[in-house]
Amino acid sequence: MKDFLVIPERLARIKEVLERRQPDLRLFLERVVNYHNVSAILRTADAVGVLHVHYFHEGELPINDAITCGAHRWLLLHREEKVKEALTKLRDQGFQLVATGLFPETIDFREVDYTRPTVIIVGHELEGISETVRELAHAVVKIPMHGMVQSLNVSVATGIILYEAERQRKEKGLYEISHLSEEEIESILEDWAYH
Amino acid sequence: MKDFLVIPERLARIKEVLERRQPDLRLFLERVVNYHNVSAILRTADAVGVLHVHYFHEGELPINDAITCGAHRWLLLHREEKVKEALTKLRDQGFQLVATGLFPETIDFREVDYTRPTVIIVGHELEGISETVRELAHAVVKIPMHGMVQSLNVSVATGIILYEAERQRKEKGLYEISHLSEEEIESILEDWAYH
Ligand SMILES: C[S@@+](CC[C@H](N)C(=O)[O-])C[C@H]1O[C@@H](n2cnc3c(N)ncnc32)[C@H](O)[C@@H]1O
Ligand SMILES: C[S@@+](CC[C@H](N)C(=O)[O-])C[C@H]1O[C@@H](n2cnc3c(N)ncnc32)[C@H](O)[C@@H]1O
Repeated sequence: MKDFLVIPERLARIKEVLERRQPDLRLFLERVVNYHNVSAILRTADAVGVLHVHYFHEGELPINDAITCGAHRWLLLHREEKVKEALTKLRDQGFQLVATGLFPETIDFREVDYTRPTVIIVGHELEGISETVRELAHAVVKIPMHGMVQSLNVSVATGIILYEAERQRKEKGLYEISHLSEEEIESILEDWAYH
Repeated sequence: MKDFLVIPERLARIKEVLERRQPDLRLFLERVVNYHNVSAILRTADAVGVLHVHYFHEGELPINDAITCGAHRWLLLHREEKVKEALTKLRDQGFQLVATGLFPETIDFREVDYTRPTVIIVGHELEGISETVRELAHAVVKIPMHGMVQSLNVSVATGIILYEAERQRKEKGLYEISHLSEEEIESILEDWAYH
């Protein structure tokens, strides 16, 4: 019966997108609270082929269709209860943890190799990332600022870094090979097409 | 008397920023209406060294300190009454007009040489740029999208394109030479330091 619910073109389109997804390029939102920012970030994540978005948030993330243009439906969102545990686990799985911020130890965001398994961590609108994240991270990257204002809007900063990752990954042909197994694709497809 | 109002370090800082400003990299906002987006765009403009921001908007742009983190104080904002006339004038002054959008004729945003005198034109949150802009533009550029959602948030898209311009201009050493005359710097400095 299910076959009648989704037109084949739609299914094919979702499958094509899944085949371009980059499961080893992840985003971690540490207390991004403004729904406008969360929305813009999820749209960009979808656009560069991110599949997994982790978030730490007091309460639910403010997510709905009107806000994200539906982007959250095409991502796997993981709510984390504990920042340290969640990041340590990802690190142990082989991910490099790339935090973002304006500290003295930062390196230029373009110096990182984002074709490696990477988690990009962005922080709270006013407070930035926590000390915990700063200590756990393999690198803290900064987008250069030539003006008077100290920091960028968090969704803009996330977009700039994600598109540097996109540039590097495209150059390496990483959007031309599927990173998910047929079974994974079928299982996510089932979920996304009919939810 | 004025000398007592601003500490010398502050003056020096503003001057340093002015010396890095790129008067030939301009932004044109065609009916960006959401204040959150306008704010994020102005912060990014300041950060990459834009000096002139043109805008077409029914009514005043929603700008104040709380919203822009003060970014609008460090930019020269030009309100335009007529899009066609304003862009034609800039084109006649030698600027290449680079519009943004999702049309068939678009080229990849990384293909443009942003070290040339350039106006980047971004559009309305739902409707995008107008036909007028599309026809006048030398090029319409697109940021590649690999996902399900059709477009990026306008402030994110603007940030990604501006930082491509930043990358190119830095590579050419354009942040290391001052693009304004001593008189221009003194006049803007006077205005910014004491307003
Ligand atoms: C508005 S900033 C927070 C500002 C805070 N005062 C700080 O020092 O981090 C919010 C988030 O945006 C990101 N961000 C903003 N500007 C950035 C820049 N120039 N480089 C890297 N990340 C940036 C970071 O993820 C940061 O946690
Ligand atoms: C949300 S979009 C407007 C969508 C509208 N349906 C369209 O087709 O243009 C608002 C603005 O963001 C910018 N924008 C969004 N996504 C973009 C992309 N992938 N490439 C270039 N510009 C983009 C453009 O300036 C556009 O006018």
